[in-house]
Amino acid sequence: MHSVGICGSDVHYWQHGRIGHFVVKKPMVLGHEASGTVVKVGSLVKHLQPGDRVAIEPGAPREPDEFCKIGRYNLSPTIFFCATPPDDGNLCRFYKHNANFCYKLPDNVTFEEGALIEPLSVGIHACRRAGVSLGNKIFVCGADVSHFLVYLGPIGLVSLLVAKAMGAAQVVVTDLSESRLLKAKEVGADFVLQISKESPQEIASKVEGLLGCKPDATIECTGVEASIQAGIYSTRSGGTLVLVGLGSEMTSVPLVHAATREVDIKGVFRYCNTWPIAISMLASKSVNVKPLVTHRFPLEKALEAFETSKKGLGLKVMLKCDPNDQNP
Amino acid sequence: MHSVGICGSDVHYWQHGRIGHFVVKKPMVLGHEASGTVVKVGSLVKHLQPGDRVAIEPGAPREPDEFCKIGRYNLSPTIFFCATPPDDGNLCRFYKHNANFCYKLPDNVTFEEGALIEPLSVGIHACRRAGVSLGNKIFVCGADVSHFLVYLGPIGLVSLLVAKAMGAAQVVVTDLSESRLLKAKEVGADFVLQISKESPQEIASKVEGLLGCKPDATIECTGVEASIQAGIYSTRSGGTLVLVGLGSEMTSVPLVHAATREVDIKGVFRYCNTWPIAISMLASKSVNVKPLVTHRFPLEKALEAFETSKKGLGLKVMLKCDPNDQNP
Amino acid sequence: MHSVGICGSDVHYWQHGRIGHFVVKKPMVLGHEASGTVVKVGSLVKHLQPGDRVAIEPGAPREPDEFCKIGRYNLSPTIFFCATPPDDGNLCRFYKHNANFCYKLPDNVTFEEGALIEPLSVGIHACRRAGVSLGNKIFVCGADVSHFLVYLGPIGLVSLLVAKAMGAAQVVVTDLSESRLLKAKEVGADFVLQISKESPQEIASKVEGLLGCKPDATIECTGVEASIQAGIYSTRSGGTLVLVGLGSEMTSVPLVHAATREVDIKGVFRYCNTWPIAISMLASKSVNVKPLVTHRFPLEKALEAFETSKKGLGLKVMLKCDPNDQNP
Amino acid sequence: MHSVGICGSDVHYWQHGRIGHFVVKKPMVLGHEASGTVVKVGSLVKHLQPGDRVAIEPGAPREPDEFCKIGRYNLSPTIFFCATPPDDGNLCRFYKHNANFCYKLPDNVTFEEGALIEPLSVGIHACRRAGVSLGNKIFVCGADVSHFLVYLGPIGLVSLLVAKAMGAAQVVVTDLSESRLLKAKEVGADFVLQISKESPQEIASKVEGLLGCKPDATIECTGVEASIQAGIYSTRSGGTLVLVGLGSEMTSVPLVHAATREVDIKGVFRYCNTWPIAISMLASKSVNVKPLVTHRFPLEKALEAFETSKKGLGLKVMLKCDPNDQNP
Repeated sequence: MHSVGICGSDVHYWQHGRIGHFVVKKPMVLGHEASGTVVKVGSLVKHLQPGDRVAIEPGAPREPDEFCKIGRYNLSPTIFFCATPPDDGNLCRFYKHNANFCYKLPDNVTFEEGALIEPLSVGIHACRRAGVSLGNKIFVCGADVSHFLVYLGPIGLVSLLVAKAMGAAQVVVTDLSESRLLKAKEVGADFVLQISKESPQEIASKVEGLLGCKPDATIECTGVEASIQAGIYSTRSGGTLVLVGLGSEMTSVPLVHAATREVDIKGVFRYCNTWPIAISMLASKSVNVKPLVTHRFPLEKALEAFETSKKGLGLKVMLKCDPNDQNP
Repeated sequence: MHSVGICGSDVHYWQHGRIGHFVVKKPMVLGHEASGTVVKVGSLVKHLQPGDRVAIEPGAPREPDEFCKIGRYNLSPTIFFCATPPDDGNLCRFYKHNANFCYKLPDNVTFEEGALIEPLSVGIHACRRAGVSLGNKIFVCGADVSHFLVYLGPIGLVSLLVAKAMGAAQVVVTDLSESRLLKAKEVGADFVLQISKESPQEIASKVEGLLGCKPDATIECTGVEASIQAGIYSTRSGGTLVLVGLGSEMTSVPLVHAATREVDIKGVFRYCNTWPIAISMLASKSVNVKPLVTHRFPLEKALEAFETSKKGLGLKVMLKCDPNDQNP
Repeated sequence: MHSVGICGSDVHYWQHGRIGHFVVKKPMVLGHEASGTVVKVGSLVKHLQPGDRVAIEPGAPREPDEFCKIGRYNLSPTIFFCATPPDDGNLCRFYKHNANFCYKLPDNVTFEEGALIEPLSVGIHACRRAGVSLGNKIFVCGADVSHFLVYLGPIGLVSLLVAKAMGAAQVVVTDLSESRLLKAKEVGADFVLQISKESPQEIASKVEGLLGCKPDATIECTGVEASIQAGIYSTRSGGTLVLVGLGSEMTSVPLVHAATREVDIKGVFRYCNTWPIAISMLASKSVNVKPLVTHRFPLEKALEAFETSKKGLGLKVMLKCDPNDQNP
Repeated sequence: MHSVGICGSDVHYWQHGRIGHFVVKKPMVLGHEASGTVVKVGSLVKHLQPGDRVAIEPGAPREPDEFCKIGRYNLSPTIFFCATPPDDGNLCRFYKHNANFCYKLPDNVTFEEGALIEPLSVGIHACRRAGVSLGNKIFVCGADVSHFLVYLGPIGLVSLLVAKAMGAAQVVVTDLSESRLLKAKEVGADFVLQISKESPQEIASKVEGLLGCKPDATIECTGVEASIQAGIYSTRSGGTLVLVGLGSEMTSVPLVHAATREVDIKGVFRYCNTWPIAISMLASKSVNVKPLVTHRFPLEKALEAFETSKKGLGLKVMLKCDPNDQNP
């Protein structure tokens, strides 16, 4: 392994030993945002060979069930997934993974970019589910995510990056934190809006004011009830609200308002079919994820790295697992 | 006009003078489930001539706005709609309507079938939004609809009829009323389930038991919170919950449960592009709506007809507006 | 194995040793329309056990490549496919297959229906690619298929059956043979049209005359150039022409006529994700494929069976592989 | 009117008096790539007022027929279309148009950009029909278009611009002309390939070589038979070939090769629902069409302008209709 990013879920498992009904019952290796170099391949593997630099898709279906067969393998109930108990992750020096879910990195894509394909994939999947298309106006609630279940990392920012790459004309990002909004502005947000005490309807009104019309789609990254409500009020008739952030089990929402305007409400569960796309984007420089990495630690200082991530300092903390190469 | 069905919304406007933010401020003609015979056409009308028997689509856009241009004219905010204040309906003897939204009936389709295209359209639109396709298992919550906002009529039954016509392999219908479930069984439900005190999760479990798997889509026709919750718990991962019934403004739902299984939640607002389809279906006898009409009154006895409908007797009450032809 | 249907491709390999670039270089077992009873399962198989009656999907991907991952596994270049050289088929007494592509048959579905899921799947895939939907008018060129490359069997008939099951309001079927058209009429065609010397434009005109408008989609099952041309002229603007029949390598077609009316031209290669749907349909009696079987032979009389199929007698010849149970 | 671009079809009508079955039978005003300033509006028009700068969508449906209702109004057979006989165009000083098809330009979009929305729309419609999506590899045949029917203008270039704006990772453009390929390279092509005597298969092979894989979609802008064939051979299984260029009535193509790999063949007829998108893109600077304008003439020198366009000099010739403002 070369570079492994720390995700909010890693921190959560470390601190709480569980996320929802996924409970850590025996020691588990963390890490699922990863890239490395192939050391050895199975006899049937043809597309990879030792020395290849690869990004690792952490979810690899165990069997071609009904969900895999229709191309939505992320919904497969028996999928292997790195660092979701009881499956071990890849924050370590050597790791074995299904070769069909290891993707060769072009020379002009760094290991860290390879590791960042994982969070980027959440943004790709969210934007695809949102149906983001050319010329769209998009509303991203929450540059960053901090909620009841688990801190997810800079999902709002990657959603913003991906929406712009898909041709969105304008993206407005809301957040509680001014510093996160500055970062959003820096990586391409057309408008930012700092939220304090506004009601959901007031937020909707301000978003419409900034864009000059209601957004075609809203990508909700906080999981906070008021923010989900704002997403419903904001989105234009016939548009889509995508739920990325996860909040409490029951949520009170203005469903009639969504239903009578045919605003579709769609969730995302991880991602599927994103690695090849992300690699193409990174290779062609269509998207720049490098600014997301704000801290680096050698694997030996993993504890310090986790403490940093836990404190919410910076955006992405990267662990460097190869003692001979600590470069990006 | 020949035949005009009474819809729950007609009864509601009659009794309460408003539905949500639609308020009757001056006398308004009711009626929007209608068919009749062309008496006169404008000089530019080519597809119709006096004597043609037609079904009337009550919603006719006033201008080709952004929603019309993309084919979702039901979402046009300035649409004319029969018997939605301030627009008059067509429960009368003579009525003028946009010719582009009058559809010629084939000889083998009766006037009453023509009038029933309106409720049938709700079922068509709901099933299309649900993505009902060949071999699907479908769950219809509520054979009939009676709720906070307004009594909508036999929407569950038409959804059932349409789902079967679209190739659904099995449909399970739930309801509180045994008699309505008997009717559902009669018109084609594969399974019926009478609900009394079950929790949403228990309903989901029973539905899964009956179908042998979770349904591909759920069509919720009651608007009741517990039923919407049951819809979310019931639907298979990657499936769709369509909201037809409308309940209270805010609804408490297990959004995380929907989102992490990618169960999409979609509402329907009236319908669009359904009349030609419905006429084809009726002409080819692919669907039989005739059993829905249980009462008929001449126009002169409209008050009696509305009283009958208000009492919830039977399914559909039809008013006969042509004194010379009171046939179906 | 219990029942295995003979497909035109089986006859073609037997007679010519090749289809296109698929060449039989060593002895190969024929047969890919099959059902049987599980005798033994691998240690990881959970959904099947000895004694289960199953239908066999002949195409089973060897690896989760890019096509499998997006749900179009029929396009996987390395797929295993029964009786496509060099892969052996299942016209034999005992056969081993990927358990994920063996589907348990409900008690009310016969072995022969199970075997007929294979040709039915071609119809399902074709109708799905055609976008057949409720109330559509459909044109099926060729009740049966006999062409340059290979005799495919009653594909036109299964396309007709499936289109009706998906809610098509009217289907018109053309063919050269009166007897095949009688069969089409028998199994549900609304209109049949016997072709003799009509030009493609004349056929288009007659089809439009029968339906009262141009068809929403055309399913071309002959592969004959003139018929493909008729398909383009016939289909309504914005509709779809699906190519099921395969003709000569190069075809001369009025592409400008298709392009300026946005008639999409789509081919089908086998099928994917059809077995579960077909089983649901058969179990719920939504479609009746039993009339397609016109001949039965015990496995020992395979030669006689192939001669019968080669002569084009009847529709589907079924081989009975279980000496203890020769029932349907 | 302020700025009106000359399209190849304008030149063709001027020189030949017809395109296909569209024949000029009486004097007709040319021009359909246009923008201007509102002088007067009808009493029902609310979204525009005198002084507004607008871009004009030349196709405005005359009635809400079946195609308009489903959102594909470009297919409406009775549509009004500027400079398609017998409908007059807008290459003049004052012109009256359906207000619903006049779109207000933001301050930061110039009149010429407004006029260029028309050719840009062909690119948008082509790329949408091609299903261009994030990370795609795209093949554009023909940077420019010169063919049997009519010279269409720089459609290949706008398709390239739009594909990149929609997130295509890599686009390869082929052409006969080195200078056009230089222009393609200048506006963003990742690879260019000059064609001389290569066979269609050889072109396909070279395109695959440049991209490292077959393209997800091919946008064919020449209408030349060999180029359409190359498009079929090139496109990856499951991909799409879009026909923008129009050639001779009958075309000989390897349909079996397309069909068995499920490469869909789709045409484009003009466009629909593109002006709002194009305006959003231009306002947000997501696409730069300014380099397309290479010549400008005042309206009085229209003949000289048409001669320039006829000679194929430069890319887009713009006529300036406002004597008081000849700025871009």
